[in-house]
Amino acid sequence: MAARSEASTAMSDGYARFANSGPGRAVVKRLGLPAPPRLRRFKPGEELGPVLLDSAPGGRLFEPVRGILKAAGISEEGERYSALVFDASGITDSTGLRALYDFFHPNARSLAGSGRVIVLGTPPEACESPREATAQRAIEGLTRSLGKEVGRGSTAQLVYVTPGAEGAVESTVRFLLSGRSAYVSGQVIRIGPATAVNPPADWEHPLDGKVALVTGAARGIGAAIAKVLARDGAQVIGLDVPAAGDALAAVANDIRGTAYQLDLTAAGAPDRLADHIGGRHGRVDIVVHNAGITRDKTIARMDADRWDSVLDVNLSSQERINEVLLDRGLLADGGRLIGVASIAGIAGNRGQTNYATSKAGVIGLVQSMAPVLAERGITINAVAPGFIETPMTAKMPVMLREAGRRMNSMAQGGLPVDVAETIAWFASPASGGITGNVVRVCGQSLLGA
Amino acid sequence: MAARSEASTAMSDGYARFANSGPGRAVVKRLGLPAPPRLRRFKPGEELGPVLLDSAPGGRLFEPVRGILKAAGISEEGERYSALVFDASGITDSTGLRALYDFFHPNARSLAGSGRVIVLGTPPEACESPREATAQRAIEGLTRSLGKEVGRGSTAQLVYVTPGAEGAVESTVRFLLSGRSAYVSGQVIRIGPATAVNPPADWEHPLDGKVALVTGAARGIGAAIAKVLARDGAQVIGLDVPAAGDALAAVANDIRGTAYQLDLTAAGAPDRLADHIGGRHGRVDIVVHNAGITRDKTIARMDADRWDSVLDVNLSSQERINEVLLDRGLLADGGRLIGVASIAGIAGNRGQTNYATSKAGVIGLVQSMAPVLAERGITINAVAPGFIETPMTAKMPVMLREAGRRMNSMAQGGLPVDVAETIAWFASPASGGITGNVVRVCGQSLLGA
Repeated sequence: MAARSEASTAMSDGYARFANSGPGRAVVKRLGLPAPPRLRRFKPGEELGPVLLDSAPGGRLFEPVRGILKAAGISEEGERYSALVFDASGITDSTGLRALYDFFHPNARSLAGSGRVIVLGTPPEACESPREATAQRAIEGLTRSLGKEVGRGSTAQLVYVTPGAEGAVESTVRFLLSGRSAYVSGQVIRIGPATAVNPPADWEHPLDGKVALVTGAARGIGAAIAKVLARDGAQVIGLDVPAAGDALAAVANDIRGTAYQLDLTAAGAPDRLADHIGGRHGRVDIVVHNAGITRDKTIARMDADRWDSVLDVNLSSQERINEVLLDRGLLADGGRLIGVASIAGIAGNRGQTNYATSKAGVIGLVQSMAPVLAERGITINAVAPGFIETPMTAKMPVMLREAGRRMNSMAQGGLPVDVAETIAWFASPASGGITGNVVRVCGQSLLGA
Repeated sequence: MAARSEASTAMSDGYARFANSGPGRAVVKRLGLPAPPRLRRFKPGEELGPVLLDSAPGGRLFEPVRGILKAAGISEEGERYSALVFDASGITDSTGLRALYDFFHPNARSLAGSGRVIVLGTPPEACESPREATAQRAIEGLTRSLGKEVGRGSTAQLVYVTPGAEGAVESTVRFLLSGRSAYVSGQVIRIGPATAVNPPADWEHPLDGKVALVTGAARGIGAAIAKVLARDGAQVIGLDVPAAGDALAAVANDIRGTAYQLDLTAAGAPDRLADHIGGRHGRVDIVVHNAGITRDKTIARMDADRWDSVLDVNLSSQERINEVLLDRGLLADGGRLIGVASIAGIAGNRGQTNYATSKAGVIGLVQSMAPVLAERGITINAVAPGFIETPMTAKMPVMLREAGRRMNSMAQGGLPVDVAETIAWFASPASGGITGNVVRVCGQSLLGA
C-alpha cells in the first residue's frame, strides 16, 4: 500500500494558518511565498452564513432548495453571502443563458471568502430538445470559469438534477454549502431519481447504524476516511495489509472501530473478507475501496510485476470483492460502493501507465456498474483526488511539488480529510440519487483531459 | 471577429526549425530555451514509414486495419516504426489489460520521432458486461499516459469503434497516421456505424466536388480552414464580416473560392445566407462554424453587451443558421456540420465566463444534435483548439504565453493548419461514422477538466 500519513497535512494546514496571520502575511509577502487562503472546513455545530438564492423563470429547483435552506436554518438575507445559488433549470435556449449573467454580474462581489457558487440545471441528456440540451451544457463553461474567478477559497459547482429527482438534492446542497466540500471545486454532479432517499434523523450523524468497510485504512487518506465515517456515525471496519497492523490498530482504537488484516490480492481474499463481514456484522452498508499502490516507471522501463501488482491492487481485486459481496448478498440493499480514482486516471501521467490505467478503470467500473446496481438501490461513485498533502507528495522534487500545490483554484494542496468528507457525502443514506458520479477533490486543479 | 493571422505562426515554425538545426541546438541549450521537436506535418505525396500492428486475442479491428495499411502502401516491416497500432477490442476483463503492457513495453523505444500510438477498442457504453466496459474504459489511462511519455513530437490516441462499425475506420486511421494530425494527442475518438461511408477515389483529394462554407474565413484559423478544405478538393465559400472584406477576398482568390460578406448576427442573416447558398450552389455539403469572438472581463466587471455579443456570435447565431439550412433542405444528406469549441469551453477560464459558456454550448450542440442528424446521414463534430499560434496569442504577457506554449506534450503551440486538418478529417465523405465527437487540437495540453 502507498505510505501515506497526515504529518505533512498538519504542516500544510499550519503553513496556511501562519501565512494568514498578521506577521505571517508580512513575511509571506516579503519572500514572495504563496499566500493560499485558509479554507473554511467543517466543524461539528457548523453554522452557515446567509445564502442568496434565485432562479431563471420556470425553474424546478428553486422551491426544493428554499425548503432545504429553511430546514437547515440558513438565512436568505444579508449583505455578504456564504453562497450564491442559482436554479438554471428553467433555461431552455442559449439566449436564456443571459439569466446567469443577470444573477452573477451584480452579486459576484457579495460572496464571502470560502464562499460557494452552486448552479442547478437539467442534465443535457435528459433535456427535451437539442436547444435546451445545448443551453444546459453551456452552463458548465460558466461554473468552471467562475471557479477560476471567485478566489479567496471559494468554490463553484454545477449540479444537474434529472426531472423527477427534485426530492433527492438535499444531501448534495448541504454538502456543497458546508465546509465539508472545502477542496471540491469546478465539478459537475448528476443527481437522478433515487430508489430510496432517506434523510437522516440527525444531519450531523447521517451514518448512524451503518457498517462501513474502508480498505487501506492504516494511514493517510484511508485513515482520514475511517475517522470521518466514524465521526458521522458509522461502525467502521478498517482493513489493511498485515505489515500495517500496528498503525491500523491505532486507527481502529481511535474511532472505536475494528481492524481486519488482509492482503486483498491473496488467493481467496474476497471470500475470507466476506466470511469476516458475514460472521461479525451480518452485512456491510458502505464499502470504500481506498487501498491503492503506485509503482512508477515509463512503460519501456517497467517490469511486468509493476504492471501486474498495480492493476491487481487498484482495480482487479476491487472487482473481485464487489462480486463476492454482491453474490453473497452481504452488501445491503441501499448500499454504497465508493472507489478512489485519481486525476492521473483522468488526464494520464508520465511514468504512470499502470497507475493511470488502473484508475481510469475505476472510473469505468463506476460508470458501468451504476445502472446494474440501481435496481437494488445500491449506488456506486468515486472520488478523484488531485494534489493531497501526504508524505508521498512531501517527498516530491520541490519545483514539481510547489507547482502541484499551486496549480489549482485554491492555490494549495488538499488534505486527506477533504477526500474523506466527499466520500461521506456519497455514503449518506440521503444520497440515493447520486450514482455513476466521479467527483474530483482537487481544488479545481488545472490538470485534466 | 477575433483578429487572427498566421504571422506569428510562421515565426513559431521558424523557431522550431532554428532550434532543431545544428547551431540552433547549441544556442538553445546554452540559453536554456525550450527545444520543441519539429513536428512532422502533412505535405502532398506524404509517405509513411512502417507501422507495427498487433492485437489482443479476439480483436475485431486487426484485419480491417491491416487492410487499410495495405491499401495505403504502408509496410509492416521495420526496425523503427512511424506508428505502433494495437487492437485492444478483444480485451474483456481488467486482467486482460496485460496485453497492452506486453505490446508497448518492448516496442515503445522503436517508435520514431513524430510517431503515432493508436489503440483501438470498444466504447465502454457498447460493451456487453461491466467487466468488459471497465477494462475498455481503463485503456484511456494508458493512452493518455503514453501521450505524456513518448516525447519527440509523437502522439497517442484511443479510438473506440462500436461493434458493426469496423468498416468505418479508414479515414480516422489514415488521419492519425498522417502528418495531418501532428498536433492532436491524448484524444479519445468514437466511431459508430455510419449511414454512409464513402471512401474517396483519391485520398489526397477527399473533398472533390463538395461545397464547403467556412465562417470567419478572412484570417488566421478560418483562413487556414478554407485553404485546407480547398486543397482537399472542396469548392469553398468564405464568409466574414464586411469590415474584413479585403482580407476575405484575398483568401478566396488564393483558393479559387468565393467570398461572401455577411454579419451573421444581423436580423435575417441566416435566411440571406441560405438564399445565397441556394442561389449560387444549390446546396452545401460542409459547414464550418469558425467565426468567434472574445470579450474578456471577470463577471463582476463584464457589461451586458460583452455577454450578449459573445453568446450570440459564438453560439446562438450558429444554432439559427443550422436550423435554417436544415429546414430549407440546403444542407445535403450526408452533410457535415463542424463547430469550433475551445479548451476554455472544457476547463473554464478566468475572465471568460461568456466565451467559455458559448464554447461549452458548442459542445452541447454537437452532442445533442448528433442523434437527431444521424437519420439523414449528417454528422456533427467539433474541434477544441488549445494554444494555437496567432496574433491573439502573440499579444499575451510573455510568461503566460510561454507557459501556454509549453504546457503540453509537444512543448510548443499548434498552428492554424493543425486545426484545419482536423476539420478536414471530420469533413471527409469517409468519416460518416464520426459524429458527436469533440476532438482537442492542443498537443495534449495539461489543461482540462
